Amino acid sequence: MNPTELPEILRLYPSPAEKVNKIYEGLKFPVESSQADDSGPYVYINVASSLDGRAAKGGKAGGIGSGTDRETMRVLRSKADAVMVGAGTLRAEVMSLTSEGRRTPEPLAVIVSGSGQIPLEEQLIGFERGRTIVIVPSSVSSERMEGLSRSAHILVARAGTRGSVDLPEAIKLLEQRFQVRRLLVEGGPSLNHALISSGQADELFLTLAPKIIGGSPGEIETIVNGGYLAEKERFHVLLSAYLSGSELFLRYRL
Amino acid sequence: MNPTELPEILRLYPSPAEKVNKIYEGLKFPVESSQADDSGPYVYINVASSLDGRAAKGGKAGGIGSGTDRETMRVLRSKADAVMVGAGTLRAEVMSLTSEGRRTPEPLAVIVSGSGQIPLEEQLIGFERGRTIVIVPSSVSSERMEGLSRSAHILVARAGTRGSVDLPEAIKLLEQRFQVRRLLVEGGPSLNHALISSGQADELFLTLAPKIIGGSPGEIETIVNGGYLAEKERFHVLLSAYLSGSELFLRYRL
Repeated sequence: MNPTELPEILRLYPSPAEKVNKIYEGLKFPVESSQADDSGPYVYINVASSLDGRAAKGGKAGGIGSGTDRETMRVLRSKADAVMVGAGTLRAEVMSLTSEGRRTPEPLAVIVSGSGQIPLEEQLIGFERGRTIVIVPSSVSSERMEGLSRSAHILVARAGTRGSVDLPEAIKLLEQRFQVRRLLVEGGPSLNHALISSGQADELFLTLAPKIIGGSPGEIETIVNGGYLAEKERFHVLLSAYLSGSELFLRYRL
Repeated sequence: MNPTELPEILRLYPSPAEKVNKIYEGLKFPVESSQADDSGPYVYINVASSLDGRAAKGGKAGGIGSGTDRETMRVLRSKADAVMVGAGTLRAEVMSLTSEGRRTPEPLAVIVSGSGQIPLEEQLIGFERGRTIVIVPSSVSSERMEGLSRSAHILVARAGTRGSVDLPEAIKLLEQRFQVRRLLVEGGPSLNHALISSGQADELFLTLAPKIIGGSPGEIETIVNGGYLAEKERFHVLLSAYLSGSELFLRYRL
C-alpha cells in the first residue's frame, strides 16, 4: 500500500480525539523491563476479532485484521521481550513472530506445546535457533526433546491440566532463564483462555475488524476457548481506543 | 440505580468527543417511516457481545450487557415500528419487547417461528394480543395456527430453507399489512444471520461489554449463527461509537 493511501488513524479515547501516525507507538506498561519485582513478567494478549466474535476462519487468524492491524501487531511485538504462541496456532499457518526490525534485538519467539510436535522450520518465518524457545511439559519423550533441541532452546515445565504446560511456571522460567519481563501472547484461543483463567494476563489488545464472518457452531473460532470464566474475572477496563477506517483498536486492563 | 450513580456517557465518534445523557436519543435513519418507496422497511439489528464474542450464555442474552445497555435497547425500540425476535430467543428467556413507554403506541412485537411453537403468554412480558404478530411458514398445521390466532395476529409466509420463514417475504408482509417502515431485530443468532446473508439488514448496533465469558466450543453463542458469509458482505462502516464506563456502543452500516 502506498503511504498516502493509508487510512487516517484517530485516537478516540482517552479524549480529546487526536490524529496519530501509528497505533501504540508510545505505549508504556506499568512494569518496565528494568524493574525488578516479584510479580513476574507483564503479560499482554493481542488478538483480532470480527464483529461476530470470529478470531479465525479454518484455524487461520491472518485474514481477520487489516494491514493496519498487522502493522499494529508488529508495534506491539516491538514492546515485548518475547512473543508467545501455542503450537496449534503455528501449525495452522506459516507466520513470523518478529517486529520486522522495530526492535533490536528481535523479541524471543516462544512456542508452547503439550505434545512437543512443533513444525518450527516449516512454519516459523525468519526462524533463528538462538532466539527460539519451546516450552514443553516433562511428559514429552526424551527423543522428541532431543529433536527439538537441535532447533530451539527447550524449557521443560511441569505438566498442567490435560497434558498441557503449567503456564505460571513456564512464564516464571522465561523470566529466570531469559530475562523476559514483558511477554506478548498471540493465541491461540486455548492459550489465551489458560492465561486469563489463571490470572496471568494483565492486558488484552483487541482489534475489532468491521466484518461479519459467519460460520456454523462447529466452525466458530473465538479469541478464547475453554471453560466459563469465574465472575470475578469478567469485568475489564478500557484503557484506550483507536480508529483506522472502521477498524477499532481497543486496549483493556484485565 | 440512583441517577447520580449512572456512568458518564461519551460519544467518542464522530469526534470531537461529547458528553451525552442518553445513547441514540436523537438517532435518525436514512429512511423515515413517512417515506414511501420500494426498498422495503429499514432493518436494524441490536445485539450485545462480550470481548470474546459471546452473545449469550446458556441461551440467555440478558446477562451480557449492563443497565446502560438495557436502557439503550429501549431507546432503539422506541425508534422502531416493530421489534422482531426468533421464537428460540423468546423460549430461552422471559422478555419484554417494549420501549417501556418511550414510544406511543409501543412498537409491534413480532415473533418468527418455523414450527409455530411460541410460548407467548408464558414468556412475553406485557403481552398484548393486538400488538403481537407471529410469522410462520405455510407448513405449520392449521390446528397450531388456530391456537396461535387466539393470542396474536398471524402472518403466513412462504417456507424458506430448512423449514424456516422466507424472511424477505415476511418483512414485505409486515410493511404491507402493518405499515412497518423501521424494523428492529434482536436475534437470535440464526435470525440475525438469515437477515444479513439475505441482504435485508441495513445496520448493526453492537454493544461490546467489557467482559470475557469463556466457554468451550459447544457452548459458544455468538451474534450470528449460520454458514460463512460471502466476501462482499464482510466490510461494514462504523457510523458512531459511544462509551459508558468501559462498555462500547457501536453502530455500523452493513
